Amino acid sequence: MSGTLYGVGLGPGDPELMTLKAHRLISNAKVICYPAADSGPSLARSIAADIIPKGALEISVVLPMRESRQPAKDVYDQAADALSLQLESGQDVVTLCEGDPFFYGSFMYLFERLSQRFAVEIVPGVTSLTACAAALNRPLTSRMDTLAVLPGTLPDADLRHRIENAQSIALMKVGRHLERVKTLLEDMQLIDNAGIVERASQANQTVHRLADYPHATAPYFSMVLIYKGDEAWTLPRSLSS
Amino acid sequence: MSGTLYGVGLGPGDPELMTLKAHRLISNAKVICYPAADSGPSLARSIAADIIPKGALEISVVLPMRESRQPAKDVYDQAADALSLQLESGQDVVTLCEGDPFFYGSFMYLFERLSQRFAVEIVPGVTSLTACAAALNRPLTSRMDTLAVLPGTLPDADLRHRIENAQSIALMKVGRHLERVKTLLEDMQLIDNAGIVERASQANQTVHRLADYPHATAPYFSMVLIYKGDEAWTLPRSLSS
Repeated sequence: MSGTLYGVGLGPGDPELMTLKAHRLISNAKVICYPAADSGPSLARSIAADIIPKGALEISVVLPMRESRQPAKDVYDQAADALSLQLESGQDVVTLCEGDPFFYGSFMYLFERLSQRFAVEIVPGVTSLTACAAALNRPLTSRMDTLAVLPGTLPDADLRHRIENAQSIALMKVGRHLERVKTLLEDMQLIDNAGIVERASQANQTVHRLADYPHATAPYFSMVLIYKGDEAWTLPRSLSS
Repeated sequence: MSGTLYGVGLGPGDPELMTLKAHRLISNAKVICYPAADSGPSLARSIAADIIPKGALEISVVLPMRESRQPAKDVYDQAADALSLQLESGQDVVTLCEGDPFFYGSFMYLFERLSQRFAVEIVPGVTSLTACAAALNRPLTSRMDTLAVLPGTLPDADLRHRIENAQSIALMKVGRHLERVKTLLEDMQLIDNAGIVERASQANQTVHRLADYPHATAPYFSMVLIYKGDEAWTLPRSLSS
């Protein structure tokens, strides 16, 4: 009998936003896999650090933070080979995933390499989407609202059309596109309906009205939420970190 | 000092998909509030039943399951008054919310009545969106995908346009619109890219390819996911409950 590959959502960063199921699986794991950037420690590992059993085998998938996809492809091929050996030997593998494994997660690169050969079980997690809504203290969607989750990298005309056509909008991967997004939202008279959250639920979380955000670019773990909806509440004037 | 109103996400139904923070707050609560339908027991209460402290005051918001909004408005007004008395007396109130409080949740009706006067803290939860993706065992979104979350009640032309323009689509509140949605997806040649999950993560969860779903309507707790994305995987042929 081969082992099972678990894709375990850790939630957005606060270890207390891990699910009980994630906590149980990690606490009992013999083999644990997680992504890490070559520029520093693994955020995924840090969220679970307190409960990773001493003596567990840890397989770190160290990703080069570069534009090209080829190095990442090689890294995932190697990681998939290492996990295959464990799974073939009957060992379960718990893969730690920031947020939710299937919501913009890197787990899919292991999933697409291994799911045809091994049993996979996904443990869903709290996403940054609702963690950001919680941080902004404003309902994201209700009743018959439409929600659009969009990369901030889309061209202006496309972004404008999609923002016009949804009641609530989440912009991911804003990063270097922040000033362009702000200009667009000012032009659409939606700038006062937008908030930005950096590192939702983490110890260094910040929360701003987008109009008051003091930086020209946004960090990797950040999201812009734009609210319209029936009530057309604007964000509280007093909002700050 | 007034108490704090906690909006606590319980996750999609499996009690083990509750977060550690939700577990802690509920286990220590003195006053607990939850929604219930007048037609049966409270799903929210049932998810947390094992950890609700004996002797906690329970305030049940019993909603008439009817089309008109007025009875619900009166019920929320009364509930907000009851919670105000507790909060004014310095008592914290833990409100149980299926899924996530700010993701299509009824908590917003208490939030809009109480958040101007009392401190509110939201504990985000696992949504049915990612629980359904986990049940279908297929990544929902990756990289630069756009995601549209839509009510199945939208008119055909609108639904078609929005489905055409997103890589991944979640249809909520399909219910009596199921046959219409199926016909539309057949016409769009997307029927083989759609799955339907009833009661994700609950004991009576079912999972089907939409083409094989044996019912003409879908229950309240169900969702259709439509996948396109780069890889254009179709759902496994063998998929069943």
